Amino acid sequence: MGNSFGKLFKITTFGESHGKALGVTIEGCPAGLPIDEEKIRLEMQRRKPGQSKITTQRKEEDEIEILSGVFEGKSTGTPIGIVIRNADQKSKDYSHISDKFRPSHADFTYFEKYGIRDYRGGGRSSARETAARVAAGAIAKQLLETKGISVQAFVTQVGNLKLEKAYQEMDLAEAENNIVRCPDPETAEKMIQLIDSVRLERDTIGGVISCVIKNTPVGLGEPVFDRLHAELGKAMLSINAVKGFEYGSGFEGVKMRGSQHNDAFVKEGDHIKTTTNHSGGIQGGISNGQDIYFNVAFKPVATIMQDQSSINEAGESVTVSGKGRHDPCVVPRAVPIVEAMAALVIADYLLLSKSNKL
Amino acid sequence: MGNSFGKLFKITTFGESHGKALGVTIEGCPAGLPIDEEKIRLEMQRRKPGQSKITTQRKEEDEIEILSGVFEGKSTGTPIGIVIRNADQKSKDYSHISDKFRPSHADFTYFEKYGIRDYRGGGRSSARETAARVAAGAIAKQLLETKGISVQAFVTQVGNLKLEKAYQEMDLAEAENNIVRCPDPETAEKMIQLIDSVRLERDTIGGVISCVIKNTPVGLGEPVFDRLHAELGKAMLSINAVKGFEYGSGFEGVKMRGSQHNDAFVKEGDHIKTTTNHSGGIQGGISNGQDIYFNVAFKPVATIMQDQSSINEAGESVTVSGKGRHDPCVVPRAVPIVEAMAALVIADYLLLSKSNKL
Amino acid sequence: MGNSFGKLFKITTFGESHGKALGVTIEGCPAGLPIDEEKIRLEMQRRKPGQSKITTQRKEEDEIEILSGVFEGKSTGTPIGIVIRNADQKSKDYSHISDKFRPSHADFTYFEKYGIRDYRGGGRSSARETAARVAAGAIAKQLLETKGISVQAFVTQVGNLKLEKAYQEMDLAEAENNIVRCPDPETAEKMIQLIDSVRLERDTIGGVISCVIKNTPVGLGEPVFDRLHAELGKAMLSINAVKGFEYGSGFEGVKMRGSQHNDAFVKEGDHIKTTTNHSGGIQGGISNGQDIYFNVAFKPVATIMQDQSSINEAGESVTVSGKGRHDPCVVPRAVPIVEAMAALVIADYLLLSKSNKL
Amino acid sequence: MGNSFGKLFKITTFGESHGKALGVTIEGCPAGLPIDEEKIRLEMQRRKPGQSKITTQRKEEDEIEILSGVFEGKSTGTPIGIVIRNADQKSKDYSHISDKFRPSHADFTYFEKYGIRDYRGGGRSSARETAARVAAGAIAKQLLETKGISVQAFVTQVGNLKLEKAYQEMDLAEAENNIVRCPDPETAEKMIQLIDSVRLERDTIGGVISCVIKNTPVGLGEPVFDRLHAELGKAMLSINAVKGFEYGSGFEGVKMRGSQHNDAFVKEGDHIKTTTNHSGGIQGGISNGQDIYFNVAFKPVATIMQDQSSINEAGESVTVSGKGRHDPCVVPRAVPIVEAMAALVIADYLLLSKSNKL
Repeated sequence: MGNSFGKLFKITTFGESHGKALGVTIEGCPAGLPIDEEKIRLEMQRRKPGQSKITTQRKEEDEIEILSGVFEGKSTGTPIGIVIRNADQKSKDYSHISDKFRPSHADFTYFEKYGIRDYRGGGRSSARETAARVAAGAIAKQLLETKGISVQAFVTQVGNLKLEKAYQEMDLAEAENNIVRCPDPETAEKMIQLIDSVRLERDTIGGVISCVIKNTPVGLGEPVFDRLHAELGKAMLSINAVKGFEYGSGFEGVKMRGSQHNDAFVKEGDHIKTTTNHSGGIQGGISNGQDIYFNVAFKPVATIMQDQSSINEAGESVTVSGKGRHDPCVVPRAVPIVEAMAALVIADYLLLSKSNKL
Repeated sequence: MGNSFGKLFKITTFGESHGKALGVTIEGCPAGLPIDEEKIRLEMQRRKPGQSKITTQRKEEDEIEILSGVFEGKSTGTPIGIVIRNADQKSKDYSHISDKFRPSHADFTYFEKYGIRDYRGGGRSSARETAARVAAGAIAKQLLETKGISVQAFVTQVGNLKLEKAYQEMDLAEAENNIVRCPDPETAEKMIQLIDSVRLERDTIGGVISCVIKNTPVGLGEPVFDRLHAELGKAMLSINAVKGFEYGSGFEGVKMRGSQHNDAFVKEGDHIKTTTNHSGGIQGGISNGQDIYFNVAFKPVATIMQDQSSINEAGESVTVSGKGRHDPCVVPRAVPIVEAMAALVIADYLLLSKSNKL
Repeated sequence: MGNSFGKLFKITTFGESHGKALGVTIEGCPAGLPIDEEKIRLEMQRRKPGQSKITTQRKEEDEIEILSGVFEGKSTGTPIGIVIRNADQKSKDYSHISDKFRPSHADFTYFEKYGIRDYRGGGRSSARETAARVAAGAIAKQLLETKGISVQAFVTQVGNLKLEKAYQEMDLAEAENNIVRCPDPETAEKMIQLIDSVRLERDTIGGVISCVIKNTPVGLGEPVFDRLHAELGKAMLSINAVKGFEYGSGFEGVKMRGSQHNDAFVKEGDHIKTTTNHSGGIQGGISNGQDIYFNVAFKPVATIMQDQSSINEAGESVTVSGKGRHDPCVVPRAVPIVEAMAALVIADYLLLSKSNKL
Repeated sequence: MGNSFGKLFKITTFGESHGKALGVTIEGCPAGLPIDEEKIRLEMQRRKPGQSKITTQRKEEDEIEILSGVFEGKSTGTPIGIVIRNADQKSKDYSHISDKFRPSHADFTYFEKYGIRDYRGGGRSSARETAARVAAGAIAKQLLETKGISVQAFVTQVGNLKLEKAYQEMDLAEAENNIVRCPDPETAEKMIQLIDSVRLERDTIGGVISCVIKNTPVGLGEPVFDRLHAELGKAMLSINAVKGFEYGSGFEGVKMRGSQHNDAFVKEGDHIKTTTNHSGGIQGGISNGQDIYFNVAFKPVATIMQDQSSINEAGESVTVSGKGRHDPCVVPRAVPIVEAMAALVIADYLLLSKSNKL
C-alpha cells in the first residue's frame, strides 16, 4: 500500500535508488492525448542531478522509456508504463553505512517496519523515486495544457532568506532563468550565494517552494475528505523532506479578522471573481476559478558532509561520515516535483468532476 | 467520491447541516473492542455548540445512536452505523441567503459544481459534518487506548497571540480546564479575552491547534504516497477552515542547517530514541517511536455579524447580512475534531502495519 | 473492508438482521436527479418478506427514511443516507441457537474470524442486509431510466424445473404478474407448485435468476481487471446464497466451436449490431450495445424446518432444530436484489466511462 | 481504472500484445519472503505459447526481469516491479486487420470506447496481458507456500468432453504430465485428440478449468460485498475468454434440496470439519477451512482460421481472414493463469484477515 496516487488519473511507482530501474504506471489518461516525449524529457532535465554547482554532482541521465499505452503518438486509454534505468546501480560501495542508521534518514524506520532494508542510497526512501513522478506529471501537464491550465512552482525561501514579493508582482517564467529557480533575479542571486556557502561548510539548508495554478475551472474538489487542498496537501507532504503545507492565506491567515480575510464576490462582465484571494482559489474544498496557490516547506537535507554520531543495527554507537555527492539544498531540484504532483492532482480532479451532474 | 476516509479502519459520512440527520459508518474496527458509549458522548460534548461564551450559542444536543456493529457492548467486526439527528432542521428561515453567495463560504463553488445546493446553513459544506467524525474518532481513540497510544490536541495560537512554551513544558491535560482549550492558563485567559473582544466587534479571528500523539509503535506509515504525515496532513486539511499543516520542525525548520536539524539516535537501555525530535516522530513517512506532533492553522470563521457585499445566483450585487449564532473563533471547538481525525489515521495505520512482515 | 461497492457511484451498507436498523450511504449520484421515493418503496415491496405463500411469512415493513443528499426532491451530489429500521429486533428468542453453528450458515466462519458474533438471525450475514442494497439500487435505476436503460430480472429455474424459452420469446414484464416471478405463466405455475410442495416437506430448494439489461451505450467496462462482466459477476456473487454466475453463452458456450460462437457484426442503417449475441452484450469486458444478459445460481436456503446435527462453540455435538418463518426458495424475493446490484454496476460504469476520452 | 487487482497484496499491470513490453507492479508483498526467480520462470513456461502441438506455435520467451523490491533474494516490503519484453513486436504486418472489427474480439468496443486503438494483435485486450499476472501470481504462490496453502488448477472439460471424476478421486499432480493438463490420463488423451481435430478443421473450441485450494485457514473473506468467492469470481471473470464461474455445488446445486445440500459440522480430534462440502469451502463469504473449489468456463477462442464477414471502422462490409498462429483451445495454457489469479486473491485475503481481531 502507498505506492499509488490518484483516483481516476492514477499513478503507481516502483523502484529503489540503486536498484535496476524506477518505473511508473499511469492509469486513466484519457485516450487521444498527443504525448510529446520531448516535453517529458525536459521535465526530467529540470529535476536531474548535476545540473548546477548548487545541486549534487551525481550523474544520472534519467532516460525514460515508454513501454505501453501510447500508439502512433497518442494515448490509447490503456495504462502508460514508463521505465527509467538507474545508470550505475552496481558500482557503489555502501559497506560504510550498510548497518548504520543515518540521522534523520529513513534507515531506522524502514528496518524496524520491514525487518530488512535495501541500504544502498536509501533504497525506496530515496528522493530518487520522484523521478518516476516527474515523468508521470509531465503527461498530466500535457493533459492540463489542452484545457489551458498552467502549473508553475518556484523557490520563495532558502533558510532565512525570504522572497517578499507577491507572485503577482513578478514574471514567474523568470524562475527558470537561474539555477535556484527563484523568479526574482536579485533574490535568486542571494539564495545561490547562501546555498553555496552552506555547501562549502559541508552543511545543508531548508527552503520553501511556492506554486501557482492558473485557469482551473470552477468545481474541482471532492467534499468532504477529498477537498482539493487536502489532496494537494497530501501530494506535497508525500514528497521527500517536506515538513509543511499551506494554501491561500495559510498560517499567516490565522492572524486576520474575518472581515479582512473574506473574499468578496463581484461580477466582471460574464465572469464571477473575488476582489481578494485569501481563499487561495479554493472554497469549501472546491476550486472557485481564481488562482490556486500554496507553499511547501522543505527541511535541510539530512545527508551532511560531516561526522555524526548514531547507532547501528546491533544498537552500538557508531560514527556516520558524510560521503558521496549530495544536494546542499533540495529546493532547486524539487520545483519540477512540486509541479508534477500538483498537475497529477488537478488532472485527477478534472476527470472526477465529469460525473458531478446528470 | 470524497465521503470516506481511511483504508482498513475506514469511515464514510453523510448528512447536511440542516437535513434530518448526520451519520457515519465505521468499517474495519477490529472485533472484540469494548465500546464505551459514554466516552463517545464526552467527545461530542467537547465539540458541541453552546458550551461557553466564546462559542456559538446555537443548541444541538448531538445525541448519537449506534445502529449496528456493536453487540453486548463489544465491536463485532461488522460496520458500526451511527446516526446523529439534527435537532431543529425544519424551523429555520433561510430565505435571506437562499440565492446569495456568502463571501468565503462554499455557496458559490457548490452551486457551480453541482448546479443545485442545499442552502440551509451551508448544507454539506457546514462544519456540522464533523460531528460524525468526532463520533467515529471516539471509537478510534478507544482502540488506541488498548495499545497505550494517546492523542491530545490543544490551542496554541489565537490571532497574533501565540503560546511560546514547548508542549513538553506544560501539563497538556490542563487544556481541558479552560474554555479556549490552551494548556497554559495565563495564555488561555488572554486568548479568551481576545476572542470575546472580537465577538463584541461582531467579527471573527483565526487560530492554531497543536496535537501530540504519544506511544505510537515504530513502523506506522506507508511509503511513498501514503507517508504517515501525508495522511495526517490530508486528514487535518479536510477539516473546515483549515489553511495549513506542519509537523515536527515545520515551516520554521526551513531556516535550520542540516547539522542542527538532524536528530541523533541513541540507545537507552533496550530502547532506541533520538536526542532531539525535529522529525516530529516521523522519518521517511514512518513513525520512529518518538512523539508525533503537528500544527494546524484555522482561518477566521467566514460568517461575521456584519454586512458584506456579494452577488447572488442571478449575478446581481447583493448585501449579505450576518445573522444567527456563530463562532467568533473556531479553534476551541475544533480541538476534538483534530484529535478525532488524528486518531482515525493512527488506528488505520496500526491495522495496515500488521501486514508488513511475513 | 467489504461493506462498500462501486467506484464512482458507490454504496456503503451497515446493519444486522436483528440490530436496530440497516442503512446505506450512496455516494456519487450525480446532482439534479429527481428522486422518486415511491419508486424506492415499490422495490422494497418486491423484496420484502411475507408477500406470498411461497415466501417467508415474517413481517418487516422495510420503511425507508432518506436522511440526506436529497433537497427539494432532487439529488444534490452529496451522499444520500438511508436508514431502514428493523421492526421487531428486540422480541425474538435466540437462545436455542446462540451457541450453535447452523449447517451451511455463516455462524461458524463469523465466530472463527471475529471471535464474537451477533447470533440473532445471522446478524450481518443475514440476507436482510440486501434490503439496503435494494433501496440504493432503486436510485441507480432512476439514474439509468434517464438514459433509457432498463434492468429486468426474472426466475428461469427452480430445482430441476427449467424455463426453456429464450428471453426474447417472452414478455418479461409478465414476470411481475405471478408470485414466483417467472415470465412464462405456465412454467410459473409449475414452479409455484414445486416450491409449495418443498415447503410442505419442511425443506428448501434452489433456483436460477436471469437478468437482461437493455439499451446500454457501447463502451461501458474498465479493462483489464474491472471488465464489465467481472464486476457484474462479483456483484451477483456478493448476494447471499449465490453459487454461480455466467453471462452470454456461459457454461453452455464451452461446448461450441468458435465458428458457431462468434457474433458477426453488421450495420443496420447507422447502427452497428451483431447477428447473434453469444457475447451477452460484452466483448473484451466492454459493452457492445447489444442486450447484456446473465444467469445467477442460488443454492437451496440453509434454514430448513428439520432437525440437523451439528456442533456448538464448545465443540459438542448438538441438534439444530428449524424454527421461525423462512423462505422455502429464495429466488422470488431475490429478483429485485439482482436488479439492484446490476443497476448499481451499470450506473457506476456509466460515470466511469465519462473520462475515457479527452 | 481497472488495471489493478487486490487490496493489500495488489498488482497493477500495463502492456499491449505488440508493444515494447508488459509489466506488473506488486505491492504489499510482506517483507522477508525469499523470492525464487526460478519458480516464476516455471510458471511462465506453463503459460507460454508454443509449448505443444495443441497450443499456438507463436514464439515468446517471456523472460522476466525483476527491477525492484527484492534485495539479496528477499522481498523488502517495497513494490516489486517486473518487466517482460515482447520479443518481436516490430516485425508483424497488421494491415489486413488494422481497420476491421474481428468478430467476438474487443476491436469494436475498444474503438468505440476510446476512439483509438492499438490494433496490433488486439493491443491491451489480448490475453498476452495475462503473462504479467502469472509472474505476479508466482510470487503470491510463494507466499502461500510458507503457510502450507496450495492452489492447483486443471482442465475438466473440452467441448462436450467432460471429466466425470470428482477431484478427490484423482492425483491432481498428474495434470502436469500431459499437454492438455487434465489429471485423468485417459480423458486427457481424448481431449488432446478433440482439440487436435478442431485445429485441423481450422476452428476452435471451449473448455472448463477447475481449481482446488487446500489448507486455507478459517476466516478469509470480507463480508458483505467482498465475500471470498465474489472476489475469486471477479478474478476469474477478468481472465480473457471466461464466460462463467461457479464454486462448490455451483449451478448443479440449484437442483438440490436444503436437506441434501447442507454440510454438517463434526469435530474430529481438535479439528472442526464438515462431512460434505457443497459449500466449496466458503460459508457466508468466509473460508471454513475445507477445500475451496470452483469451475471456470472458457469460450472457444474467437480467432479462427476461416473467413468471416464483418465490418470495418468506416462501417463497410469486409471479410476477416484467419491468419497467424493461434490456440485452438485456450484451456491448457489458461491453467497457470487461473492459479495465478486464485493465489493473488488468497494472498490478499490472508493479509486482510490480520486485522479482524484486536
